[in-house]
Amino acid sequence: MRYELYYWPSIQGRGEFVRLALAEAGADYVDVARRSSGTAKMMDIVGGKGTKTSPFAPPFLKKGDLIISHVANVLMYLGQHHGLAPKAEAGRLWLNALQLTITDFVTEVHDTHHPLGPTLYYEDQRPAARRRTAEFLTQRAPKYLGYFERLLERNGPFITGRKLTYVDLSLFQLVEGMRYAFPKQMAKLEKKFPKLIALHDRVMVRPRIKAYLESEQRISFNESGIFRRYKELDR
Amino acid sequence: MRYELYYWPSIQGRGEFVRLALAEAGADYVDVARRSSGTAKMMDIVGGKGTKTSPFAPPFLKKGDLIISHVANVLMYLGQHHGLAPKAEAGRLWLNALQLTITDFVTEVHDTHHPLGPTLYYEDQRPAARRRTAEFLTQRAPKYLGYFERLLERNGPFITGRKLTYVDLSLFQLVEGMRYAFPKQMAKLEKKFPKLIALHDRVMVRPRIKAYLESEQRISFNESGIFRRYKELDR
Repeated sequence: MRYELYYWPSIQGRGEFVRLALAEAGADYVDVARRSSGTAKMMDIVGGKGTKTSPFAPPFLKKGDLIISHVANVLMYLGQHHGLAPKAEAGRLWLNALQLTITDFVTEVHDTHHPLGPTLYYEDQRPAARRRTAEFLTQRAPKYLGYFERLLERNGPFITGRKLTYVDLSLFQLVEGMRYAFPKQMAKLEKKFPKLIALHDRVMVRPRIKAYLESEQRISFNESGIFRRYKELDR
Repeated sequence: MRYELYYWPSIQGRGEFVRLALAEAGADYVDVARRSSGTAKMMDIVGGKGTKTSPFAPPFLKKGDLIISHVANVLMYLGQHHGLAPKAEAGRLWLNALQLTITDFVTEVHDTHHPLGPTLYYEDQRPAARRRTAEFLTQRAPKYLGYFERLLERNGPFITGRKLTYVDLSLFQLVEGMRYAFPKQMAKLEKKFPKLIALHDRVMVRPRIKAYLESEQRISFNESGIFRRYKELDR
């Protein structure tokens, strides 16, 4: 059965972590909201129409009656069913912990441009965004990236060892996003994380990922997603 | 084998969601950091000492060599091994999605007093905290609580139906925390969510939960945790 992915049609956003896993898995899926009336269909499900398990928000994956929401949860499912995660419980829990650390990092990236919350426009919170971003770039980003770098040093070449998992795909996307959002600061920052950059490069040339990145399926980064380029923040 | 829980010893914080599940499960565990040299031992593990799977941050649960970090991940494990989650895959994924929605809510609660990031003191970000909290109380909290209320209406009396799960324990803690942090605003808000309050009351009188809440194990809320009472924010 074909998967249905539900996510905002004009951004990479959180949905991109799922799209990358679907691409690497070679899974058959339709990106529903990018089709006619797709967003309305998505919001019906969020509103509880026809299901007892309505998600709080996109992205979510649907397969028949099964609806799976939250990126880490979707990836856990795809990892298990498409060979992108270890089979043993301990390995799966470790992988999920890593993905949840990425989830937290992504939230902090979002907060750089929305420190006063998701209900206000960026334009209404610029001074706070500047302060939050400064803390993020000097304190938080190095802490997160340093954590993954140490794990790659210890366990590499992939984050859990010899085999690629969905977390490696998400780490690729983190590097891509940081480079887009903070080109100046990331250029300096990434020199300290050579293993992470090597991982990024290794993921990028995988045949299915490469094909996906070069296809029309891959939406460009823009200022409506998670990773946004605002010159005044990249200082 | 006895579980070891690692979390900051003087706050409920994120660790409390795990403590409640351990209490309901009647599981044998030691709260390591509350013992002599326990915090140092915790930070050694975070620093990677003696393990290839070091967590990014507390809380984490340890059982022999197995280390599980991130609240939702720990709860997924405990749920499966102690009868606090459905056995079938679809049910487990649904439960995990609900817990991850709670994780997001908890992050937004934390951001009410730390909108400019976790690296600055509250005292250095008061004006931003006031703005973020106003958005949180008028927009975000009603959206999250309304979501859980609708699910309880549809599926109750517990969040997934007839049987208590770890998510019900976490929802109890959410209500407790909101009442502590925003007594004035929550008193108004909670009138709109009678099913959620009924669930809270149902959890509170369960024998093991009641015993835990009355014991010295239960740390009081305070202004170092996630749910903090600052008069100027509760308006």
